[in-house]
Amino acid sequence: MGSEDTGTEPTPGHPRPTRRGLLGALGAGLAGAAIGGAGSAAVVSASFDTGNQGSARGVVPFHGTHQAGIITPAQDRLHFAAFNMLPNVGREGLIKLLRDWTEAAALLTAGKPVGAGAAPENALLPPDDTGEALGLGAGHLTITFGLGRTLFVPADETTGEDPYGIRHRLPAAFEPLPSFAFDLLDATQSGGDLCVQACADDPQIAVHAIRNLSRIAAGRAHLAWSQLGFGRTASTSREQDTPRNLFGFKDGTANVMAQDTRALNRDIWVGSEAPGWMQGGSYLVARKIQMTIETWDRASLGEQERIIGRTKIEGGPLSGGTEFEAPDFSAERGGAPAIDVEAHVRLAHPENNGGVQMLRRGYNYVDGSNGLGQLGAGLFFICFQKTPETFVTVQRSLKPDLLNEYIRHIASGLWAIPGGIRQGEFVAQALFD
Amino acid sequence: MGSEDTGTEPTPGHPRPTRRGLLGALGAGLAGAAIGGAGSAAVVSASFDTGNQGSARGVVPFHGTHQAGIITPAQDRLHFAAFNMLPNVGREGLIKLLRDWTEAAALLTAGKPVGAGAAPENALLPPDDTGEALGLGAGHLTITFGLGRTLFVPADETTGEDPYGIRHRLPAAFEPLPSFAFDLLDATQSGGDLCVQACADDPQIAVHAIRNLSRIAAGRAHLAWSQLGFGRTASTSREQDTPRNLFGFKDGTANVMAQDTRALNRDIWVGSEAPGWMQGGSYLVARKIQMTIETWDRASLGEQERIIGRTKIEGGPLSGGTEFEAPDFSAERGGAPAIDVEAHVRLAHPENNGGVQMLRRGYNYVDGSNGLGQLGAGLFFICFQKTPETFVTVQRSLKPDLLNEYIRHIASGLWAIPGGIRQGEFVAQALFD
Repeated sequence: MGSEDTGTEPTPGHPRPTRRGLLGALGAGLAGAAIGGAGSAAVVSASFDTGNQGSARGVVPFHGTHQAGIITPAQDRLHFAAFNMLPNVGREGLIKLLRDWTEAAALLTAGKPVGAGAAPENALLPPDDTGEALGLGAGHLTITFGLGRTLFVPADETTGEDPYGIRHRLPAAFEPLPSFAFDLLDATQSGGDLCVQACADDPQIAVHAIRNLSRIAAGRAHLAWSQLGFGRTASTSREQDTPRNLFGFKDGTANVMAQDTRALNRDIWVGSEAPGWMQGGSYLVARKIQMTIETWDRASLGEQERIIGRTKIEGGPLSGGTEFEAPDFSAERGGAPAIDVEAHVRLAHPENNGGVQMLRRGYNYVDGSNGLGQLGAGLFFICFQKTPETFVTVQRSLKPDLLNEYIRHIASGLWAIPGGIRQGEFVAQALFD
Repeated sequence: MGSEDTGTEPTPGHPRPTRRGLLGALGAGLAGAAIGGAGSAAVVSASFDTGNQGSARGVVPFHGTHQAGIITPAQDRLHFAAFNMLPNVGREGLIKLLRDWTEAAALLTAGKPVGAGAAPENALLPPDDTGEALGLGAGHLTITFGLGRTLFVPADETTGEDPYGIRHRLPAAFEPLPSFAFDLLDATQSGGDLCVQACADDPQIAVHAIRNLSRIAAGRAHLAWSQLGFGRTASTSREQDTPRNLFGFKDGTANVMAQDTRALNRDIWVGSEAPGWMQGGSYLVARKIQMTIETWDRASLGEQERIIGRTKIEGGPLSGGTEFEAPDFSAERGGAPAIDVEAHVRLAHPENNGGVQMLRRGYNYVDGSNGLGQLGAGLFFICFQKTPETFVTVQRSLKPDLLNEYIRHIASGLWAIPGGIRQGEFVAQALFD
């Protein structure tokens, strides 16, 4: 009945194997394998060390050309948090915060506790690490940092305030999102000076990361709001199978994938048109989309499929074919378009949006229930794109979407995601050069 | 890039293997194994079919002497829901609901969709199953049903109302919980005529179960409140390692385990002293315990350990020894008790409570954050015991608990858990004989 948790720090790159950590590692290795019955163990064995880019088991490298957590094969669990700066922290305080966060994120994503760990030698001190992720391994944790527009330009733009001395570095593309039809946004769950997206195989690992970053921010920034998610609603790598959203439909079939280098460079990664600190970065849009699932569940199968424009079980377009068949928007059935003119798949498709694409990376959420006996459930939609304008274009196209009867956007945020972090540097360092 | 989700129903007992389903199955098999580096695949292979009581992969048998989800090795994810009956449903309506729920639960726990599945042949009908768990497998889903006292005796006891004709069958032990010191209960998240505890390896599977049971209840009962949880905070089987709660401490070290037959019969399972429908059953107490983790995190390691009465990393009692060493409450260190007289471990220990024990089966939760920049986080405590009096005894003992400075009980519920369900019967059937 012994426990594996002896509490010693896992060696970097060699976290002690644990039940959950191991399964996390297996998860990535297995994702693309054709798994079948009795032969599975061999498959497990063969792919045991793949799927995490050659690094230690369950560890996604933190440093690189791009921040992790964008084209990283979407993990199954999310804890997303927005932070607001406290008054009078100033430029040096912000720099120190980003430096401290970067240092902690490098440890956390390696499966190591922050600072001196959960048990300081001097028991009169509070532990640096809160401890609840001890023994769980890295679990493919990624931590992705973003900067809100309010960090550059205070909400009241007329004051000329520039608390961090970066107002002149605001990228031209970084405009606030406009209001959209059907928006019903809760300001207390929207926006924020900074965002942190923590994704992992285990929610306890993602929660631990946000909690410890929030703690590190004390006196400089405070948690404005946070959101848990499960059941990734898109694949970001061809190894992954297509998950389902809470409408019961496959989601993210036609996503931009890690392997689509051309699409990534054209539509997702910020290039040389932008200031250096944004190159290799992206823009993250988050939208909390409440689904009225009880109403949806009473719609007929035919109606559900007409609204989405795909079949429910297979996920194939209503113009015919299997899931990965391209939708044929000109196809007709009985004299009418096979895919409704207001079907979601048609309106959201690049063909209807000047060819632009976004990389989707959202999660299902359930926040208990409301006073009407309904689940507070939906999609915490996250997407990445080279310019916020892409999201605006697509979202405007969705105005006549049949799906709008069953959803409501209840929170929103937009952040600039700086490029990848090099060893020894901190996130967005070049912004302060 | 093909998907495994072809939407065909998994054969009972032989769910199609999927990435997540497979990992779920591995989870149980691996839990007790000593896993180490390169040899792991062999371990995986050897234990592939164990851990789920000889049944199909990832399936916990639904029928048996006791309801599943009590001594079943605690899964990692929870969706707990309470329901209230609608007016004028009556005895036959309640019986039909319990019958429908039982039938659906038998399918869901076998990894099968409810009713005619997610795609009825007649597309003019709404699907019977909402579809989001297609292809995820059974994921060790257990569904445990409970009956609230208000089902027997309406809240206003003086009216003599007896809408379901079961008032005279109220077990003598089934008294309402009293108020406890420090209670700050939210009535909108407390109690309920019925409860459903859904536990699984994957939150999407647990959410899918509650959602579909809620849907089946339409017109008869409505969802009163629900709670998601992750990171089980107790082991219920000696195969499992001890998890950590959000205080960063191991939790549930000295729990009653599936293997402790004597303790189960003495303290957990209702015996022949009770009416037939309760024999083999238990009483479930749920307490939503908010933790002020930000304050806790500022306490020194020494203070944290003094409060709990155990070391943080190892989880050993402060009287000495490793995690599974019995605490020695008479031990002294420097003239003072080694384990503080108000330490949590001392006050909660059977030795301090007339020897009674409960089976704990709680989960960590994070419900976003509050308006003070703090996480809405804590422990959704669940315990099972032969009589509610056990919980009352222990909870009263905890009045001077040093931990009370850092926690607040914000919701509460008590339900009678009928005995196991036999093939062809419905839950609590004997209550209506």
